[in-house]
Amino acid sequence: MPKQRLEAFSDGVFAIVITLLILDVRIPPTGGGSFGALLLILPQLAAFVLSFVIVGVYWVAHHMMLHFVRAVDRPLLWANLLLLLTVVLIPVPTAWLGQHLASPAAITAYGASLSCTNAAGCLVWRLGTRRHGAEAGRLEGYVRFVTWVHAAPILVYAAGAALAFAAPYASLLLYAAVPTFFILPNRVLDTRLRAAMAADAAPAHGH
Amino acid sequence: MPKQRLEAFSDGVFAIVITLLILDVRIPPTGGGSFGALLLILPQLAAFVLSFVIVGVYWVAHHMMLHFVRAVDRPLLWANLLLLLTVVLIPVPTAWLGQHLASPAAITAYGASLSCTNAAGCLVWRLGTRRHGAEAGRLEGYVRFVTWVHAAPILVYAAGAALAFAAPYASLLLYAAVPTFFILPNRVLDTRLRAAMAADAAPAHGH
Amino acid sequence: MPKQRLEAFSDGVFAIVITLLILDVRIPPTGGGSFGALLLILPQLAAFVLSFVIVGVYWVAHHMMLHFVRAVDRPLLWANLLLLLTVVLIPVPTAWLGQHLASPAAITAYGASLSCTNAAGCLVWRLGTRRHGAEAGRLEGYVRFVTWVHAAPILVYAAGAALAFAAPYASLLLYAAVPTFFILPNRVLDTRLRAAMAADAAPAHGH
Amino acid sequence: MPKQRLEAFSDGVFAIVITLLILDVRIPPTGGGSFGALLLILPQLAAFVLSFVIVGVYWVAHHMMLHFVRAVDRPLLWANLLLLLTVVLIPVPTAWLGQHLASPAAITAYGASLSCTNAAGCLVWRLGTRRHGAEAGRLEGYVRFVTWVHAAPILVYAAGAALAFAAPYASLLLYAAVPTFFILPNRVLDTRLRAAMAADAAPAHGH
Repeated sequence: MPKQRLEAFSDGVFAIVITLLILDVRIPPTGGGSFGALLLILPQLAAFVLSFVIVGVYWVAHHMMLHFVRAVDRPLLWANLLLLLTVVLIPVPTAWLGQHLASPAAITAYGASLSCTNAAGCLVWRLGTRRHGAEAGRLEGYVRFVTWVHAAPILVYAAGAALAFAAPYASLLLYAAVPTFFILPNRVLDTRLRAAMAADAAPAHGH
Repeated sequence: MPKQRLEAFSDGVFAIVITLLILDVRIPPTGGGSFGALLLILPQLAAFVLSFVIVGVYWVAHHMMLHFVRAVDRPLLWANLLLLLTVVLIPVPTAWLGQHLASPAAITAYGASLSCTNAAGCLVWRLGTRRHGAEAGRLEGYVRFVTWVHAAPILVYAAGAALAFAAPYASLLLYAAVPTFFILPNRVLDTRLRAAMAADAAPAHGH
Repeated sequence: MPKQRLEAFSDGVFAIVITLLILDVRIPPTGGGSFGALLLILPQLAAFVLSFVIVGVYWVAHHMMLHFVRAVDRPLLWANLLLLLTVVLIPVPTAWLGQHLASPAAITAYGASLSCTNAAGCLVWRLGTRRHGAEAGRLEGYVRFVTWVHAAPILVYAAGAALAFAAPYASLLLYAAVPTFFILPNRVLDTRLRAAMAADAAPAHGH
Repeated sequence: MPKQRLEAFSDGVFAIVITLLILDVRIPPTGGGSFGALLLILPQLAAFVLSFVIVGVYWVAHHMMLHFVRAVDRPLLWANLLLLLTVVLIPVPTAWLGQHLASPAAITAYGASLSCTNAAGCLVWRLGTRRHGAEAGRLEGYVRFVTWVHAAPILVYAAGAALAFAAPYASLLLYAAVPTFFILPNRVLDTRLRAAMAADAAPAHGH
């Protein structure tokens, strides 16, 4: 399978998931037509925005991972489908969270769901950047760095889940800190990425 | 991220949103099988057509904005996701409007939602057309013009919301005037666009 | 707007509509887990298959129309969006038909909806094949022929609607005859298409 | 129709179907906000994961089939739409299975639905690889082999349906064995595929 078709298919799934999230945000027919009805969907809106931003960050991360992939072999193909499976699952805990924004169970399930995506992301990254000889050496540090960047949020989600039983809203803020970290300008990430791209581009490689 | 992939992802989201709008237009199972049941969905149909046309205009505007973008940097990437977030939100007030076509609250929420999209559009436009030196000078007037074109509908939506409490249907007509303005042949817009494209194309730039 | 992007966007909408049709085919939670529950969705399945095939034929027709389009100007762009609007509407009468398969009202509404798509198709075709001078002459006969091919089903749908009050199932068979006509091998259509393509390809034209 | 556009449209439908599957997995509003609510969706989750993986395998198989297609003629075009029709249907038995995981009727319907997809896949494969003269000879063995690979799961699904009345969960495991077979490293499949690709690539052919 050419890398380009895998990217296009993955982009399609990301675009559909990010848009389907809104299907769970609806003012109920019994809500009436006054401004008060808007209050009914505030928790759903909050859960929607959080998941939209997080899926957006995953989409950008997926693109950056695939940039370093030379060829799509079978293990990478199925690991990528596993990653997409975890992304497609995100609307389920999002909808639950939208109904019970302060429920420790919903917050924990939400964090667990995102942790699965991050774990699958690590797998895709390791399988996609297996290289041999000098090539492997040039990227080794970056591969380890990005693995860590993908794994670290799992610790944040675990901390958020533990916190959820004491202070559920603080827990949600902790979750929101993860995409914020990736969206804000970040000198360390940028420098590392640029260096790795330069190292990787040294020998011409097919796209 | 190459501009082409950002466009493809954005196009995907626009296509999904414009199609999902129809999910809220359904003759209820209790509506029966006679022609009278069609009357039940007239308000939903009106809200659907209005939003379909508006999202279509946003899609064309998005394409024209990205035409002038040279490279996708981080700020533009996240501003574009913010724009998509506001587009994905449009089905929510549309569905509410479909249930309460004459409700001032629903009309105001609808206008506020569209205003967010226009504001995000201004941001994408300003971030996407930052240039340096002579390049910046050549497009300066056009950049200011398009910013104004994106900002002006916000005033119309505000006027529509104010009017909604007195004459809700006049308010909806005012909203509908915005996409109509962009769809009808428009000598000013066309002349400006062509001049800017010519100015921009002077030095060869990758697409 | 380049023709290619218009095609990709339209293809996206066609793909989403053709898939969303299935959302209205669901065994209700009260249907139970025995084979009898399958009988409950037979009318929905029939309506789904009919609409799936019809939208598939529209998709192929759209592709063939765009093949002869040289450039996308504003009128064509908005006519194409109008066509997509009528395609996006198809799930509404389909869902109604799935609930009331023998209802003359539902059958008439379904035929009326498809007629709108055919009328919009005629518009897209005429706007997309406006040519000047010798070019126009070479395709003139084919343009008129295809206009007729797009318009003729409207007569069939009108006949079907009239028949619906006497024999609703015969009416549905009449509707089904339209896509069948386009799917079955058809020497007239094929010869005409090939001749037009040859005439059109004579001078090199951009894609 | 160029092969590339058929692939893009098919990919779009596959991506939408694989994502829509999740719409039937939702914790009901009456489920509450405690961990117990998660138990309510376990059968739905199981059905979702099974179908996600199966549709993923179909997507990869579709790609591999189209790799050997030289040109898209009318019969192949409609056979491919038939294949997509059966893929779009998969969410219906999946949703039913999610409600009644141990129901022999739901398990049989699910297997029957997948069998239709496999049968349509055989048709696409035979129509897509019709060749003439020496070309036909070179691929003959592979064409027969892949036909068998597509047909064999139908026997498994039939066995699963028969087993469903005695041991429904064993039946589901049997279904799950089919995608597992294609996902696990498979020396026979790989060797055959590589040999066929080499034989097919001998004369340059357009893509």
